[in-house]
Amino acid sequence: MANSPSGDTMTERLVRVLETFTTERTVQTAAEIGRRAGLPSSTAHRIVDELVGAGLLERDDDRRIRLGMRLWELALRGSSALRLRQAALPFMQEVQRQVREHTQLAVLEQDEALFLERLSHPDAGANITRVAGRLPLHASSSGLVLLAHADPALRERVLSRPLRPLARETVTDADALRRILASIRRQGFVVAPGTVETVSTGVAVPLRSAGEVVAALSVVLPRDTDPTASVASLREAAAGIEAALRADRR
Amino acid sequence: MANSPSGDTMTERLVRVLETFTTERTVQTAAEIGRRAGLPSSTAHRIVDELVGAGLLERDDDRRIRLGMRLWELALRGSSALRLRQAALPFMQEVQRQVREHTQLAVLEQDEALFLERLSHPDAGANITRVAGRLPLHASSSGLVLLAHADPALRERVLSRPLRPLARETVTDADALRRILASIRRQGFVVAPGTVETVSTGVAVPLRSAGEVVAALSVVLPRDTDPTASVASLREAAAGIEAALRADRR
Repeated sequence: MANSPSGDTMTERLVRVLETFTTERTVQTAAEIGRRAGLPSSTAHRIVDELVGAGLLERDDDRRIRLGMRLWELALRGSSALRLRQAALPFMQEVQRQVREHTQLAVLEQDEALFLERLSHPDAGANITRVAGRLPLHASSSGLVLLAHADPALRERVLSRPLRPLARETVTDADALRRILASIRRQGFVVAPGTVETVSTGVAVPLRSAGEVVAALSVVLPRDTDPTASVASLREAAAGIEAALRADRR
Repeated sequence: MANSPSGDTMTERLVRVLETFTTERTVQTAAEIGRRAGLPSSTAHRIVDELVGAGLLERDDDRRIRLGMRLWELALRGSSALRLRQAALPFMQEVQRQVREHTQLAVLEQDEALFLERLSHPDAGANITRVAGRLPLHASSSGLVLLAHADPALRERVLSRPLRPLARETVTDADALRRILASIRRQGFVVAPGTVETVSTGVAVPLRSAGEVVAALSVVLPRDTDPTASVASLREAAAGIEAALRADRR
């Protein structure tokens, strides 16, 4: 595909444009997009015009730019994220009915936990997770489950990097993490108090499809809650989702 | 952006590649993508390689191609579809708890109803709606609500086209539809029996944000169900979602 004078491909420039939109920044001018994407102004305007023409971006009456519904549709329609999430949703609702806090579904993406879904009770406690948001593998309960079952090379790559704490109690020592990961593989779940936020405890279990761990199912509880019932609820839901995924693959 | 010899832009080719993936077709070879997108084989392989490199597509061990998690993330993270859906979800769950059939959220996109969310009870009746799927405006209850409140020019454009029936009872006469749309604007809801499938009845209400109808909230009931309780449930949910959207805009 045609390269620009700076040598980056159109796809790379497209990704840089899309990356300027975040959960907190959903509306921008074309000039802001260009600046944040590191593109010359004329290039940014041309790309934005073209993406607006295709419906991948939308321009409002004030000429501000948003992500387009058409992009949402094309990205979701045939995606395994949607399939996994649709299979999981009824069981997540059941967990939510029992636990009444936050119930979440995450996958491993680019060495982080990417959250595909989050259900929250109106009165639930603190939780920084967002749908389409990410958390570090070593700090979140979902991430720890995904890391425990990841390819060993990926696991060692992640553990050999500087491990940033998210909260005072985040475990950042590689050997301590290796012991936690081994225990997750042995026990089939993790309880991670205070590793993302001091006030909350993450509880997560693996989800398997065709023998591989493909996702983590988790709840976020207020710190002082006994996690025992949540572990049982998550395990039951995971078994249900795994059966639904088996039926889906037939 | 660089044009190909055939004059289409990279964005157009990207859209054509993404359009080859559907709810039913989530895995393809690069050759199949090229054929379905109408691209020369070498071009298709080059575009697929580049999109795989950026994570927008993923290649499995059998060299088959899927939509990438990275595409899902970039398309959702800053999208108004996600914001609307997150605001609506707790209220949709409440409708679902009361009605126990199918509860859906749709927006107007390219003269069709695009479904952002669907919750379904395991024992619920027939329903052809899919998340990220579409239905014609004149046939579905959600579409009728969106059409009733659409820009008059769009409404007349849709009504002046040949209106295809989805089922025996789909209303396809423009004047009859104009009367239905006027009644929706007056009553604030629609009950559409048998217009999508003979065995089911759609019930839908509008959702407003900043004074404009931005979405339709609907349930799909088995044909013989009295819709009265569903209308009340949908109206209460719509009021709750509208309040959440107001809070979100502050």
